[in-house]
Amino acid sequence: MNVQKRLMFQQIIKQHSLGALVFWRPDELVLALGYMPQWGLSFLVYTRDDAPVLFVPELEPDDILPGNIEIRKFPWGNINCADPWKDLFSQLKDLIGKRGLNKYPVSFIKNIGGTAPCRMSGEQPHLPYDLIEQLLGLSDSGFNDVTNDLLKLYLYKNEEDVRCLKLVHEVAAMAIQTFYNNLKVGNSEAIIASAIEMEVQTMTGKNGAHFAKAWPLIQSGVNAAFGGRFNRTTGRILEESEMIMLEMSVCVNGYWADITHTGQTSVVSDHQKKIFNTVFEAQQLAISMMKPGVKMGEVDAAARTYIDKAGFGHLYNHALGHHVGFRYHDPGPTLSPGSVGVLEEGMLLTVEPGIYGMEINGGVRIEDNVLITADGCLVLSDYPKWLSI
Amino acid sequence: MNVQKRLMFQQIIKQHSLGALVFWRPDELVLALGYMPQWGLSFLVYTRDDAPVLFVPELEPDDILPGNIEIRKFPWGNINCADPWKDLFSQLKDLIGKRGLNKYPVSFIKNIGGTAPCRMSGEQPHLPYDLIEQLLGLSDSGFNDVTNDLLKLYLYKNEEDVRCLKLVHEVAAMAIQTFYNNLKVGNSEAIIASAIEMEVQTMTGKNGAHFAKAWPLIQSGVNAAFGGRFNRTTGRILEESEMIMLEMSVCVNGYWADITHTGQTSVVSDHQKKIFNTVFEAQQLAISMMKPGVKMGEVDAAARTYIDKAGFGHLYNHALGHHVGFRYHDPGPTLSPGSVGVLEEGMLLTVEPGIYGMEINGGVRIEDNVLITADGCLVLSDYPKWLSI
Repeated sequence: MNVQKRLMFQQIIKQHSLGALVFWRPDELVLALGYMPQWGLSFLVYTRDDAPVLFVPELEPDDILPGNIEIRKFPWGNINCADPWKDLFSQLKDLIGKRGLNKYPVSFIKNIGGTAPCRMSGEQPHLPYDLIEQLLGLSDSGFNDVTNDLLKLYLYKNEEDVRCLKLVHEVAAMAIQTFYNNLKVGNSEAIIASAIEMEVQTMTGKNGAHFAKAWPLIQSGVNAAFGGRFNRTTGRILEESEMIMLEMSVCVNGYWADITHTGQTSVVSDHQKKIFNTVFEAQQLAISMMKPGVKMGEVDAAARTYIDKAGFGHLYNHALGHHVGFRYHDPGPTLSPGSVGVLEEGMLLTVEPGIYGMEINGGVRIEDNVLITADGCLVLSDYPKWLSI
Repeated sequence: MNVQKRLMFQQIIKQHSLGALVFWRPDELVLALGYMPQWGLSFLVYTRDDAPVLFVPELEPDDILPGNIEIRKFPWGNINCADPWKDLFSQLKDLIGKRGLNKYPVSFIKNIGGTAPCRMSGEQPHLPYDLIEQLLGLSDSGFNDVTNDLLKLYLYKNEEDVRCLKLVHEVAAMAIQTFYNNLKVGNSEAIIASAIEMEVQTMTGKNGAHFAKAWPLIQSGVNAAFGGRFNRTTGRILEESEMIMLEMSVCVNGYWADITHTGQTSVVSDHQKKIFNTVFEAQQLAISMMKPGVKMGEVDAAARTYIDKAGFGHLYNHALGHHVGFRYHDPGPTLSPGSVGVLEEGMLLTVEPGIYGMEINGGVRIEDNVLITADGCLVLSDYPKWLSI
């Protein structure tokens, strides 16, 4: 386990006099151990005495398990075991009971809302109906809700996280290239999305990527008018002189990028170019301000004012950005109007202004992932944006 | 809303004297309304007085909303609303309060475990941390847990469901063909999986499919030895004379198929053929028994005994099948040893025996989706299986 993460967990434990923290949501396990579960049924018990144990189902692949931590198995998926959860909860209680941790409450996040999927993303993890009740009963001293402290863990990416995040962004670079290569009249949105998915998935097994998957969503022409409300791919066929928006999450080994580019099939009108340039310039202006100590609301305001002054403010209807990295949308203060969050070293945020609507018959969004450094920022997704070249 | 579904809901409401049922998990909404949510943040309140209301976020695409039901919106995703959930919960309480439903408890399923993803499958729905507490407080008469009755709703597919399920299986047929077409020495597992994903996704917008996505997992050669523990795709390159397993979920418009085929790159050994044929014959034997009134445990036993007698029983380590259709794995009694579940008309079950292990340097599974009819069964996934031709 990473030393910095241990220190962060220990700090929460000491501050709230806890016996243990239980991490079970797929992205918490990436955050804590760099480990993306296959089944989404793994439980990290990080103990007060700094001797954590990771419980995994028997069916979990051995080669994805993290090193340098004690691992215990429980018989989920074992046809001979009628109640694998009873076995797990008994093992968990045993661990808490044996080390004097019972004198303190445990804590964990109760809600699975917004978390990243496990590797089997076609289905949510088969967690038992009484999971929360069982976890609440782990310690004789009950439960202490420190959700806010646990959510703050998502805000900081350390050196090891950044190394993994750079790999995701290398893979995403190829996906973006594939997007531009496929912006041809006659291609459907679905064909472009599929080509991007293929580009990313075929990176599996290369350059240290043991899991590589993208969720690209393509909105072309008038479909992009709804890009400020939802992102999706349809069967619409691309036409001449229109702009196409790619919204994409990419996951490599459990780490995430969230990137949006807008391209064109063939030469677009001056009005369309003006909209593109307004979004691009607003984004670049916001990024140029990002460094430790700057208020998030001020970054948002800079981009928003720029778009307002260009006359498109009424078509820009969402926040400027959010934390990203352990999942598609990490929790935490956002770049949004009035946000009092303050940028700090190690934060990774999206910066994604947009202009959309039937009024302009389409939409443009440009989104990058920006890492706050000691004295400024680094754009991890610094790929060429074609309309801006 | 479908009349049969209304009757099923009314029966539960009357039997347990409830004021309303709340359906919120993505697959419950498919089951109830044939509606797969975009954001996974939609709430169907099915009321005692048979006047249901569907609450959806403002950002939900209008064109996927079901007809024939009252729809109300809440301001999730609206940058001008500080607390969209407060607005929703207030609307929900208002609905329950106004129609005298308050005199009765409400019910819903508390757990999101195992549910299907929403259309944005790269992330779980951004549900609020206090969702369960808020829903528990909807009625002054509290909550009545009728989870078992609600889970039983997954067991029966009606005529309208079957029409939708047939469309999924038409799309899956093309995916299976793509699988066989790509079983070439030199292709990686990831390339095959990607080709299948592309085949399915490009059906978006055709034949009434407004959402089409597959999660294929390819295990080739020795990798398939782990096919009884987990399914995943790696970068492994296919070699001569080996067998390749495809495990796949396919979702079209919210309805699911779960299919496994095993193919070969080039001529395999007699021993490999024997294993394939054993699995295939065990599967066909099980399917031949399936009709209303038959015990699920007996179907499992037939396939298991067949594999045992062929000498491979110790390499077959999982249940024979499960319900499917509203998600990748619907809840309910399984085809497994000792299962006392009884087959009934309208049930859709997978039948998927397998033999795997390092002892045979690989694995074979064959899986079909079998609909129980009035006097027998219908295999919805009745595609050619190449080794068996």
